[in-house]
Amino acid sequence: MFSSELPLYYQLMEEIKKMIDEECECHDSIPSEHKLMDYYRVSRTTVRKAIEELVNQGYLYKVHGKGTFVSGNSIGQGLVNLTSCTEDVKNMGLSQHYDLLAEEVILSNKRISDHLHIRHNQPVFHLERVSYGDDTPINLTHSYIPYDFVPDIDQYDFGENSLYQILKEQYHIKLTESVRSFEAILCNQPLSEQLHVCEGTPLIKFIGQVKGILPTGEEKQIEYFVTYYRTDTVKFFVKQVNQ
Amino acid sequence: MFSSELPLYYQLMEEIKKMIDEECECHDSIPSEHKLMDYYRVSRTTVRKAIEELVNQGYLYKVHGKGTFVSGNSIGQGLVNLTSCTEDVKNMGLSQHYDLLAEEVILSNKRISDHLHIRHNQPVFHLERVSYGDDTPINLTHSYIPYDFVPDIDQYDFGENSLYQILKEQYHIKLTESVRSFEAILCNQPLSEQLHVCEGTPLIKFIGQVKGILPTGEEKQIEYFVTYYRTDTVKFFVKQVNQ
Repeated sequence: MFSSELPLYYQLMEEIKKMIDEECECHDSIPSEHKLMDYYRVSRTTVRKAIEELVNQGYLYKVHGKGTFVSGNSIGQGLVNLTSCTEDVKNMGLSQHYDLLAEEVILSNKRISDHLHIRHNQPVFHLERVSYGDDTPINLTHSYIPYDFVPDIDQYDFGENSLYQILKEQYHIKLTESVRSFEAILCNQPLSEQLHVCEGTPLIKFIGQVKGILPTGEEKQIEYFVTYYRTDTVKFFVKQVNQ
Repeated sequence: MFSSELPLYYQLMEEIKKMIDEECECHDSIPSEHKLMDYYRVSRTTVRKAIEELVNQGYLYKVHGKGTFVSGNSIGQGLVNLTSCTEDVKNMGLSQHYDLLAEEVILSNKRISDHLHIRHNQPVFHLERVSYGDDTPINLTHSYIPYDFVPDIDQYDFGENSLYQILKEQYHIKLTESVRSFEAILCNQPLSEQLHVCEGTPLIKFIGQVKGILPTGEEKQIEYFVTYYRTDTVKFFVKQVNQ
């Protein structure tokens, strides 16, 4: 019943999720490893990897010596509003912290210049961080800001500080608008190490442009960012209200 | 330089996109097939598949007997607002039509009942369609609506008609709010046939719940939908304005 193109454990996960969605109630036990191996004709390793992933994703939970159980109604669980991710992660009761990978001033290449509406080879502040919810990486973000707008910003410790708070409080920049586009991509090797997922895992890539008003009153392109999000543990939502 | 985990053509595409973003101007020619084969140490088949995909995605264009060229600044090209997709696809000058896969009344299973807040085994209208922009599939959507709210809706031809227009004009239902969550997934075999992409291509899956007001004045959960989107040809954006 499985195809040869996708990882087997991934296909088995999808089958088990479907079974849970269609048939199971909260706290139902799921079939034993042996039954799953027989029914789906896969190895013990594949069954274990699929179950482990589903436990990580919150679909299942294990009770030592008892078995594996369905976590309950997954609708609306772990949903995070796309445009207020940091706050929502905190509101979910997860502790939020960063792993700082780069904090430096670089010269803008063509791509960065185009997004920030500046000339090539201009000094730009570059910040690269992995954002965690408890011990799980949630996303990796590259931010770029024209250095002229934020002189000496590389003096702050961005292992601790919120970028937007520093922009607001120290540089008196009022952010006015953000536009982000998104697409699905496959996780490559460097990203897989930072986000703790297998290579080939589907991720969402956001490209964002943020406008703001400088203390001089001018409205400018303040930030360009690229974010790679895992969507297996935290899911996003967008709400729309019709007039 | 390539890893063994991801399809080679996919990794080559990413490298060429990076080269375009960092170094190329609009209408620059890109290196010949031979040069790309030598430089990246890949086969002609891999180079051709990567180039073909980049042409499909609008990054490159071909001129017969001349070569392959960069399409220009891709920022903001082909962006579609997530919450008004159908209109935006039309506004981009693409002709929009549907491929109707299912239009039927079924009994609700646990998953459908949970999302629509109804009891199990209730009659539900199920619509499954692939939405096209010109000749390219953009998404596949399953919609579910309690049949009590829309008696005889299966008489309409949804190969032609807009679902929301029929709800509004024929059933006098005023849609008030939609919430959609999204995650990145890998395309499986049945989806790959409907969306004309390779198995294993990353897609975005939306799960949506739409509320509305019935002619009686009651506000109810009107629709539950699941949509699988390609993001290689059309990209979505979300805009946020700060108060």
